[in-house]
Amino acid sequence: MDSFSISELAGGIDTVWVLLCAALVFLMEGGFAFLEAGFIRAKNSLNIVMKVFTDCTLGMLAYWAVGFAIMFGLDRAGLFGTSGFFLGGGMDHIKLRVPIYAYYIFQAAFAMAVASIISGAVAERMKFSTYMIFTVLVTGLIYPISGHWVWGADGWLAKMGMLDFAGSAAVHAVGGWCALAAVIVLGPRMGKYSDDGSINVLPAHNMHLAFLGIFILWFGWFGFNPGSSLSGLDMNIARIAVTTNLAAAAGGTSGALFTMIRWGKPDPSMAMNGALAGLAAITAGCAYVSPVSAVIIGLIAGVLVVLAVGFFDRIKADDPVGAIAVHGVNGTWGALAVGIFAEKGGLLYGGGLKMLGVQALGVFSVSIWAFVTTFVLFVILKKIMGIRVTPEEEAEGLDINEHGIPAYTELTAPPIYGSGHGHDSHAGALNHIGHMKI
Amino acid sequence: MDSFSISELAGGIDTVWVLLCAALVFLMEGGFAFLEAGFIRAKNSLNIVMKVFTDCTLGMLAYWAVGFAIMFGLDRAGLFGTSGFFLGGGMDHIKLRVPIYAYYIFQAAFAMAVASIISGAVAERMKFSTYMIFTVLVTGLIYPISGHWVWGADGWLAKMGMLDFAGSAAVHAVGGWCALAAVIVLGPRMGKYSDDGSINVLPAHNMHLAFLGIFILWFGWFGFNPGSSLSGLDMNIARIAVTTNLAAAAGGTSGALFTMIRWGKPDPSMAMNGALAGLAAITAGCAYVSPVSAVIIGLIAGVLVVLAVGFFDRIKADDPVGAIAVHGVNGTWGALAVGIFAEKGGLLYGGGLKMLGVQALGVFSVSIWAFVTTFVLFVILKKIMGIRVTPEEEAEGLDINEHGIPAYTELTAPPIYGSGHGHDSHAGALNHIGHMKI
Amino acid sequence: MDSFSISELAGGIDTVWVLLCAALVFLMEGGFAFLEAGFIRAKNSLNIVMKVFTDCTLGMLAYWAVGFAIMFGLDRAGLFGTSGFFLGGGMDHIKLRVPIYAYYIFQAAFAMAVASIISGAVAERMKFSTYMIFTVLVTGLIYPISGHWVWGADGWLAKMGMLDFAGSAAVHAVGGWCALAAVIVLGPRMGKYSDDGSINVLPAHNMHLAFLGIFILWFGWFGFNPGSSLSGLDMNIARIAVTTNLAAAAGGTSGALFTMIRWGKPDPSMAMNGALAGLAAITAGCAYVSPVSAVIIGLIAGVLVVLAVGFFDRIKADDPVGAIAVHGVNGTWGALAVGIFAEKGGLLYGGGLKMLGVQALGVFSVSIWAFVTTFVLFVILKKIMGIRVTPEEEAEGLDINEHGIPAYTELTAPPIYGSGHGHDSHAGALNHIGHMKI
Repeated sequence: MDSFSISELAGGIDTVWVLLCAALVFLMEGGFAFLEAGFIRAKNSLNIVMKVFTDCTLGMLAYWAVGFAIMFGLDRAGLFGTSGFFLGGGMDHIKLRVPIYAYYIFQAAFAMAVASIISGAVAERMKFSTYMIFTVLVTGLIYPISGHWVWGADGWLAKMGMLDFAGSAAVHAVGGWCALAAVIVLGPRMGKYSDDGSINVLPAHNMHLAFLGIFILWFGWFGFNPGSSLSGLDMNIARIAVTTNLAAAAGGTSGALFTMIRWGKPDPSMAMNGALAGLAAITAGCAYVSPVSAVIIGLIAGVLVVLAVGFFDRIKADDPVGAIAVHGVNGTWGALAVGIFAEKGGLLYGGGLKMLGVQALGVFSVSIWAFVTTFVLFVILKKIMGIRVTPEEEAEGLDINEHGIPAYTELTAPPIYGSGHGHDSHAGALNHIGHMKI
Repeated sequence: MDSFSISELAGGIDTVWVLLCAALVFLMEGGFAFLEAGFIRAKNSLNIVMKVFTDCTLGMLAYWAVGFAIMFGLDRAGLFGTSGFFLGGGMDHIKLRVPIYAYYIFQAAFAMAVASIISGAVAERMKFSTYMIFTVLVTGLIYPISGHWVWGADGWLAKMGMLDFAGSAAVHAVGGWCALAAVIVLGPRMGKYSDDGSINVLPAHNMHLAFLGIFILWFGWFGFNPGSSLSGLDMNIARIAVTTNLAAAAGGTSGALFTMIRWGKPDPSMAMNGALAGLAAITAGCAYVSPVSAVIIGLIAGVLVVLAVGFFDRIKADDPVGAIAVHGVNGTWGALAVGIFAEKGGLLYGGGLKMLGVQALGVFSVSIWAFVTTFVLFVILKKIMGIRVTPEEEAEGLDINEHGIPAYTELTAPPIYGSGHGHDSHAGALNHIGHMKI
Repeated sequence: MDSFSISELAGGIDTVWVLLCAALVFLMEGGFAFLEAGFIRAKNSLNIVMKVFTDCTLGMLAYWAVGFAIMFGLDRAGLFGTSGFFLGGGMDHIKLRVPIYAYYIFQAAFAMAVASIISGAVAERMKFSTYMIFTVLVTGLIYPISGHWVWGADGWLAKMGMLDFAGSAAVHAVGGWCALAAVIVLGPRMGKYSDDGSINVLPAHNMHLAFLGIFILWFGWFGFNPGSSLSGLDMNIARIAVTTNLAAAAGGTSGALFTMIRWGKPDPSMAMNGALAGLAAITAGCAYVSPVSAVIIGLIAGVLVVLAVGFFDRIKADDPVGAIAVHGVNGTWGALAVGIFAEKGGLLYGGGLKMLGVQALGVFSVSIWAFVTTFVLFVILKKIMGIRVTPEEEAEGLDINEHGIPAYTELTAPPIYGSGHGHDSHAGALNHIGHMKI
């Protein structure tokens, strides 16, 4: 048996903690995939899962090659990092008890999450090939730069004292406002808004798939928030787990009750999005607010998300899964809430408006960055390669047109699932073989 | 780098362990939701998932506000706790190396599980609004009181020496016998039992969803049982993981083989319920019995569950998912099995009948408590607000009538899925917007 | 509060780590089940899940009774172990900080995985009863013997210096080449290959189920590879997590891009299998190669799997899920890749051909063992009890014929789902009750 120093034991505890939390955060990608797939129509549901999966593959590589360095590398003027590309060293300024590899894998899962938040909003019409370029730019550039401001060593917002423990602003607001820009440039789905101004229903095809997504996401948040401590020796992780869960529970409760009061029936999609909104909102303050405050933050989030879904629909920003309302609005709310509820320095604890001001400046800065860069990028991509499938492809569905196969072959009634004419019914490359030479 | 004391390191190890185990136990809610949804008809399957989700939202809040205090607060006469409401202090009598918050989140997931056990038995007919009241009362009152007897500091059964490591009695028997009372007051589903006494088939609509539930539940039990040690420094956790898994494997094996012998074919639902029965049964004794005993306990559980499903169906206690047989019968069996197989004090280890007597007294006491309180509560709720949907609603399905949307929009054949007439096909509040002012 | 020695703390850290990693690896069984079920036709999809579930029940018992002892017990001539049956002691030669029970449960999950790899390849035609025998023999005998060579104390390959950190050879190549032998003896599915030599499409019925499998499997690999360190104090676990994830990301990327180049569209099943191929390939070298090497290994794996799926289809080795290409080919590639990329001793690091030679000898030895024993065993089982359902059963589907119920009752269109005539539509033993005496 080997002997260990106290410091080695501490390093072991922290590394075990961070790696397992990273695994939980990684699994959230499955949560995003199924939530989004369940909320949309079957004919586009495989495409959206493929997009989220691409966040895990291309996105992880982009964050490894470039993103991590830009986000956490040696600072240049508070704006971006400059060292650590391809995990090739240059991260000695980060003082952690965990190996830099553990830090990378945990952060990589966050970067993918930002891309996957956006993927839901652009569902049912965005071209897959353009999405591949986009996910590389989000995980490699857009998210890491604003992320550096908040979390980087010497990031300009970090130095101002902005508090964003696990990323209501850095992750959720950024993802949500990227999504709004993307949706504006992309335009709504065919058939969503009629010429007479009415809003049409494009129904969720599989609510169990969506609920699977929610349970996975909630589970993953046990890693997302407490894991952001980066240490299993920080005893605050237990309270972070509690504030996180209470906010989710409160958001799910108020989302359901608010729809029950308004429409007579508790709405499943709003119960789900309420819980997610609570989670997005508590992510900044989970380490700084009391459990009671967490419940209040969550209750407000659950109502906000219902109102926001309505608002974005009225302005014809067509977001099939509610990602802008959940992550954009409630990420912003959560960042501001720290300035109100933080036990040290919050408005309600005698801290005055100073912290609230910093939080507002911070979340608005990263949100504007996210919105503007995505807007410009989408305009450019639209000119260069197109960002949207053709109307014919959209009508028939992206699964067949972008991937050659449907999500389901036996479970959808043929007249609902589109014509299918002109397509070989090949189900996956496992079955492509008969059609070609190798 | 900070320096740490031995005690701080120990606290870190235990807290990491308990929080990650709590995450696993929380995920079991997804397991309950999909197991139950898969076993019932599509038209009611979204409603049952919403009920389980409500256990996670309202249930978690109720346990935070009241339940945890009643279960673990300062004892009054061995019957209930009196301190710690809203996590507001008063828990200093609990001696743990983990923060009280870690203890709360772990225990909260247990409380939700009790409610979710019951939700399955009342599926396809219980009103959602009444269920909301009920889940608050189960997680806030019914479960915490009997839980205090078994696990509370100075609970009367704890003081008698009852052994129920992770809750065969406190969780599973309580949940199962609550379910029996609920089912009796509620009555069977329409069409389940014909006037001529024959029992009809109301088929499971999606066995993959059910199996997803099982895999999640089994996975979650890695947290449920070993995590109940509340310490990663208790080396018995490894053996607990082994006894837990062997009992599940044995129950799944005997459930499948027993149906193979009886009916000629290994039955998937009984393979699943056999494994769950093994898990429910080993939950009390996982820390006290040998691996060989765990296998025997599981093998018996797998047979018991098949017999019990038949028994409850014959007495017309209509339980669509077998929750009473799995959790009630096998939770009881598991609590008794400790008195037989415990290496210290069990009947087979020369301990005589004393321990078996205490275990029997314990499990019967909590079971009677569960049954009687739920029975009375359901009778009261029936008078005050009704506990069951109307026959018309039941015929058409609870999803449309209670939530306004179906679980699946494109995947069910219209003639099977009910008439659908008179309903807007709005899929989630994301799509309600077109119909109303905001 | 108790006091702890350094050694006790180290033991706690390691045990927490190994048990939680074991839970993740166990959950991979759900991943295999849904990946395989999704890739095949609905009418056989419940049967395949039941087979994987049987790996968890019977397989876990077989590994407990016999397999673990043969794999890790006291060595006989470098060929197999001889002590530790039924976890009954005789494992003192294994020097670990974790209890032997933790080691068992971690290893048991690996044994199940081998069986579950094979189950996919024999899908849609293998008899369930014969599969039950087979899974016992794989987990109890075939896998443990070659596993002993690689990982056992004094196994002959271990003594030669073969490096197979988490089992590209011991687990994946063994599973994959067992699968090839099984498929050859079993023959292709009816209708897969026409008399004119053309290859027909038997389409995947549910790509979301398959993707659920992938997300679970990738998540589980966070336990599979880093957990194989068996210690949370080995700081290399963080780099192992990174190499594992980068290889998966690279394989998923190259699998998708390669199909995009070849067929014009990124293929979802090949994106999935590419990621899995990357994972299978990095499993041997995850602890020995750099992140850049991991990316290269993964990129190659993602192309190899596409080519291999084509190859095995052309030689009419009908593998409905691509298990041979993923695990056999890429497990082999991964074992060889260690000899090329290992930082200590690899070809590219100046180590010459020695290590590559040992790796080649190792992986070919265990592969031949796997292929030959499975081939012989299948020939014997074919004579004794039959290995294949009847053509009528195969046409109608294994779910109805082997288990009496379909996977879905309301979600499949009747004309697609087979005739269904002559069957009571009983859905699970929960509903068998009406038809029989108890």
